[in-house]
Amino acid sequence: MEFLSDIELYYTLPAWLKTDTAVIEGEEFKHITRVMRHQIGDTIYFTTGMGIIYYGEILSIEKELLTVSVIKHHVCKNNFSNIIFCLPKLKHPDRFEFALEKCTELGITRFVVHNSLRAISKGEKLERWNKILLTAMKQSLRSFLPVIEAITDYKDLIKLAGEKIIFDQNAEQSIDELILNQGKNYYFIFGPEGGLSQEELNEAGSNNIFKIAENRLRSETAVIKCAAIITHKALREV
Amino acid sequence: MEFLSDIELYYTLPAWLKTDTAVIEGEEFKHITRVMRHQIGDTIYFTTGMGIIYYGEILSIEKELLTVSVIKHHVCKNNFSNIIFCLPKLKHPDRFEFALEKCTELGITRFVVHNSLRAISKGEKLERWNKILLTAMKQSLRSFLPVIEAITDYKDLIKLAGEKIIFDQNAEQSIDELILNQGKNYYFIFGPEGGLSQEELNEAGSNNIFKIAENRLRSETAVIKCAAIITHKALREV
Repeated sequence: MEFLSDIELYYTLPAWLKTDTAVIEGEEFKHITRVMRHQIGDTIYFTTGMGIIYYGEILSIEKELLTVSVIKHHVCKNNFSNIIFCLPKLKHPDRFEFALEKCTELGITRFVVHNSLRAISKGEKLERWNKILLTAMKQSLRSFLPVIEAITDYKDLIKLAGEKIIFDQNAEQSIDELILNQGKNYYFIFGPEGGLSQEELNEAGSNNIFKIAENRLRSETAVIKCAAIITHKALREV
Repeated sequence: MEFLSDIELYYTLPAWLKTDTAVIEGEEFKHITRVMRHQIGDTIYFTTGMGIIYYGEILSIEKELLTVSVIKHHVCKNNFSNIIFCLPKLKHPDRFEFALEKCTELGITRFVVHNSLRAISKGEKLERWNKILLTAMKQSLRSFLPVIEAITDYKDLIKLAGEKIIFDQNAEQSIDELILNQGKNYYFIFGPEGGLSQEELNEAGSNNIFKIAENRLRSETAVIKCAAIITHKALREV
């Protein structure tokens, strides 16, 4: 399982995994049997989103589910389990969703969606967002299904236990000066178009304010650039 | 003009700039006068996309154009004028356009669109792409209007004078090992979904093959991550 660039990765719920077999149903079942036309005896890769990629053989195909054996498995490491990306809802949902997808591909596994003052709120879409996270995880052959939650009040975001890292274009410190320790939670707080308000910056009560670029970036661009740099830097240090 | 985070930046053609005045017409004229409702005596920022941001006062507003004085100007530096991002057309135009927009915001100023074997071609859309580049330049308060051209044959891309840098997930070298010299052109060649074919890799005849990440990335994600890292790294070295 060293070479995982050219495979299809499927997903099944953790509850469907037994000691040496697993059941796959629903959309994933349909994709495996109807789109990819896999048959009994074929081998596939799958994950339950908990950090392990399994490789097994299809043992049986029934009307709405299939059973697959577990021949071998590969345990992955999550280098970013202590980093929580806190994203504002954006005016354009497609830009927000693009940021979610790109962050997942790059290795971010925890998200909080918050209502900052200047964010445009149009209700939660957790189901849709979870689908994007699942697809991006499979697409990028990752095995940690990202977790996303919504916090309607920005004040509640600030109360969460962990270090708050605020990104603001007018900060004096650059993201290169940001030092992260393992074993500590970091909430990376990004503002909406127009940035966090001065009041919100004050509420955060944090001196951890960093800029991501010298020039102005759209909100989702700042988020994606930050994900690219943080995950790349961490990988080099591993 | 030190603090440029909270302004509107407008564009006018280089030909409309005289020694100490400029004319603005068309869409930009409409935006300034009808959307932003600027009047004679107001000051605005504008650029001709050649690396200078101008600040001036609106001297006159006619039916379809306005004249603005040049009170001062700020000359910008293009650190990436020798880097050409060669992007394949993608199956989903919105993903391709997103990559163009993000790269421009991050500071890339030269693009070539190529038809790699596995790219899905649906004709050129240069007018639409140029509009995206213009909007992204203004949005990110940059003053170099990116240049984009289309090359229909991948072989012609390889013939262009300059170093070819190929990105492939299965490369042994990491992008961190890539060293760029000023004064030399570098063509960064990205593949479509599924990557460049083995034949295309051979045709490039280059040992400059690098990977951008350990895991699989969508084509546009690889492009955006590369832009983020290259522009960030260069900025730190300046």
